[in-house]
Amino acid sequence: MAVEQDPKVQIEQSIEAGTKFCNIFYEHFDKTRHRIGKMYHDTAQLVWEGNGVVGKANIEKYLQDLPGCFHRLDWFDCQPILSQFTSGKETIVVATGGTVKYDSHPMRGFMQNFMLTNVDGTWKIITDSFRLQKTFVQS
Amino acid sequence: MAVEQDPKVQIEQSIEAGTKFCNIFYEHFDKTRHRIGKMYHDTAQLVWEGNGVVGKANIEKYLQDLPGCFHRLDWFDCQPILSQFTSGKETIVVATGGTVKYDSHPMRGFMQNFMLTNVDGTWKIITDSFRLQKTFVQS
Repeated sequence: MAVEQDPKVQIEQSIEAGTKFCNIFYEHFDKTRHRIGKMYHDTAQLVWEGNGVVGKANIEKYLQDLPGCFHRLDWFDCQPILSQFTSGKETIVVATGGTVKYDSHPMRGFMQNFMLTNVDGTWKIITDSFRLQKTFVQS
Repeated sequence: MAVEQDPKVQIEQSIEAGTKFCNIFYEHFDKTRHRIGKMYHDTAQLVWEGNGVVGKANIEKYLQDLPGCFHRLDWFDCQPILSQFTSGKETIVVATGGTVKYDSHPMRGFMQNFMLTNVDGTWKIITDSFRLQKTFVQS
């Protein structure tokens, strides 16, 4: 069991890591999507609008096949997973939300939710869940 | 290191656990909120609309202080975390989305994102991130 760090320090570190991650992830997604696959762990799992995709190579292909797009991030939340739950593996959860405009489609709200693990100093995505916002009639 | 289970079985188990969890969580939240605290781990972390709350007792108080409400779930995604990342601890990620109507407020879209760990046969929330949907002008 690793020595448990001060939660405040862990939270600050997770925000720093999450901020960098979000910047790189959406930059790759929108402009250099051929590079996004390297951000996923070999055994990563993606759920894209309810469609499950398992493994880095399959996820890479799935994302490449989506149309071109532009994301605008409105917010993101970062949370460290205390090492008592991961036996010392550095792990963070990042939730994001904003709008996305896919080619030939109207702009939509979206939310996305990642779990990241630190592999030799590099953060790799182990789970990724993406959903477009549903529109609904205001009561 | 625990023996790695078949990912397909793990995914099915996570869906079963996530379904039960969602039913109980929103039932408690809307109707019996005094019981919701027991669903959180002692060291749980909540981020509620960007406000960080650490520890079960603080989370319990924070949630009790929110107005009465009614959630309608539109979707939820469940993903198991492979035991290679948690050294055998059973862990799942659950993302949810739908609408919520708080007393005296208009109905809003929301998304929520949980990480759950199995403690002696009971799933406990270790992280919880909640956001109301932003409204935006359609382009």
